[in-house]
Amino acid sequence: MELFYAYETDSRLCRLDADESGHCVRVLRHRVGDEIHVIDGLGTMYRCRLVDDNPKGAEAEVIEAFPGWGGHPYRLTVACCPTKNNDRFEWFVEKATEVGVDRIVPTIGDRSERKVYKTDRALRIALSATKQSLKARIPEIAEPLSVKDFICHSEPASFCHSEPAEQAKESLKLIAYCFEGDTKRISIQEALRAYDGTDVTVLIGPEGDFSPEEARLAIDHGYIPVHLGASRLRTETAAVLAATAVYLHFA
Amino acid sequence: MELFYAYETDSRLCRLDADESGHCVRVLRHRVGDEIHVIDGLGTMYRCRLVDDNPKGAEAEVIEAFPGWGGHPYRLTVACCPTKNNDRFEWFVEKATEVGVDRIVPTIGDRSERKVYKTDRALRIALSATKQSLKARIPEIAEPLSVKDFICHSEPASFCHSEPAEQAKESLKLIAYCFEGDTKRISIQEALRAYDGTDVTVLIGPEGDFSPEEARLAIDHGYIPVHLGASRLRTETAAVLAATAVYLHFA
Repeated sequence: MELFYAYETDSRLCRLDADESGHCVRVLRHRVGDEIHVIDGLGTMYRCRLVDDNPKGAEAEVIEAFPGWGGHPYRLTVACCPTKNNDRFEWFVEKATEVGVDRIVPTIGDRSERKVYKTDRALRIALSATKQSLKARIPEIAEPLSVKDFICHSEPASFCHSEPAEQAKESLKLIAYCFEGDTKRISIQEALRAYDGTDVTVLIGPEGDFSPEEARLAIDHGYIPVHLGASRLRTETAAVLAATAVYLHFA
Repeated sequence: MELFYAYETDSRLCRLDADESGHCVRVLRHRVGDEIHVIDGLGTMYRCRLVDDNPKGAEAEVIEAFPGWGGHPYRLTVACCPTKNNDRFEWFVEKATEVGVDRIVPTIGDRSERKVYKTDRALRIALSATKQSLKARIPEIAEPLSVKDFICHSEPASFCHSEPAEQAKESLKLIAYCFEGDTKRISIQEALRAYDGTDVTVLIGPEGDFSPEEARLAIDHGYIPVHLGASRLRTETAAVLAATAVYLHFA
């Protein structure tokens, strides 16, 4: 099943941008009248009929809409410090999208080697992984901010199909860090098992770990320090493993 | 902490090959008398003192040995069909090694697009990921074989520090596949929870899934069909997720 992303949709019509139109019409040779499947990136998949096969701006008429298509029963924000090697962070974006994540926040820590992060490539990877893994909602890739700003100012991600009552429920905030000895940590699975909501935020530090000030600030803001088991993991592996632990917990 | 791999060790001396010696002596500028940490790739880490700083063949005297260093409390074989894109399979080798795996078997399925797989790069990646994630045991990368041969002839991996009693225990054999409808599948977590041993084998199919004959053969040989949750995962993501599920289960 091939999915196309529509930058504009309403209950009647889906419009594809030049990239998606070119792929649909030039590469896959779809013509007016063909049935195609379109996602709005916000959680709905549309079964459509192509009504304009312009390779620079195709349009498709909605036959049937499937809200919440390919969704998952939790809401997950992973805030992760971009790795020195950009490929590794992008790999995390791809894998977390495949597994199921709602928001990715590139955070810059006191000890981050990479202090600047541009989100354009991550956005493209998230779109591609969303289509490839048959989901209708593209995870949000937030603009980078400092770990401290994230801890102090971030709110749970807003979700298009969420109920107000659910949004109000306290979210589970976890910080995975490597300090040894000074703070008692539980495993990420124990933290998940002790929580009865569905809104989870996980904060993953840079190669050099969080600074003591960042860890303290997180704990002061209600973050629970967790570990990810005995293995020593790279930043991007830790981030994917945390997303996987949440996915498996709610599976 | 920097680890070096010794191709030959006894209770007294560790010998490094030309690559490792060059890295130790030329790159990191260790000299006779320096304390270094050496792994034998079989599960033991040695605290050593360099006694020969030849950059083509360094030798180090054992001060202290740590058997089972960086190990995990389970034994995991992941048999996975190599992906069309080699990078993706190698990424699985790296990530599974970081998380914790004992044996990786490249298997060729009836529907595999890649029918040939050379293990040399995977061996290098497994060594590098073992050192990077502070483990002493390098996972075995088996020579490729067909899915059917693997199912019919494979025995649980032999482990250097295993007790005979443990080896004898029945291993848990799982096949993750995507057929819908025709076979009842449980989740990988349910299968793990129902098992009281520590020896797990997971079989992951190619992009086009297992053939019905392969799936039937696996079930006839005691494999339990499992699913990995609702997300549609790429082959290499499924393989890493399965390894992660085992790791988290035993954490």
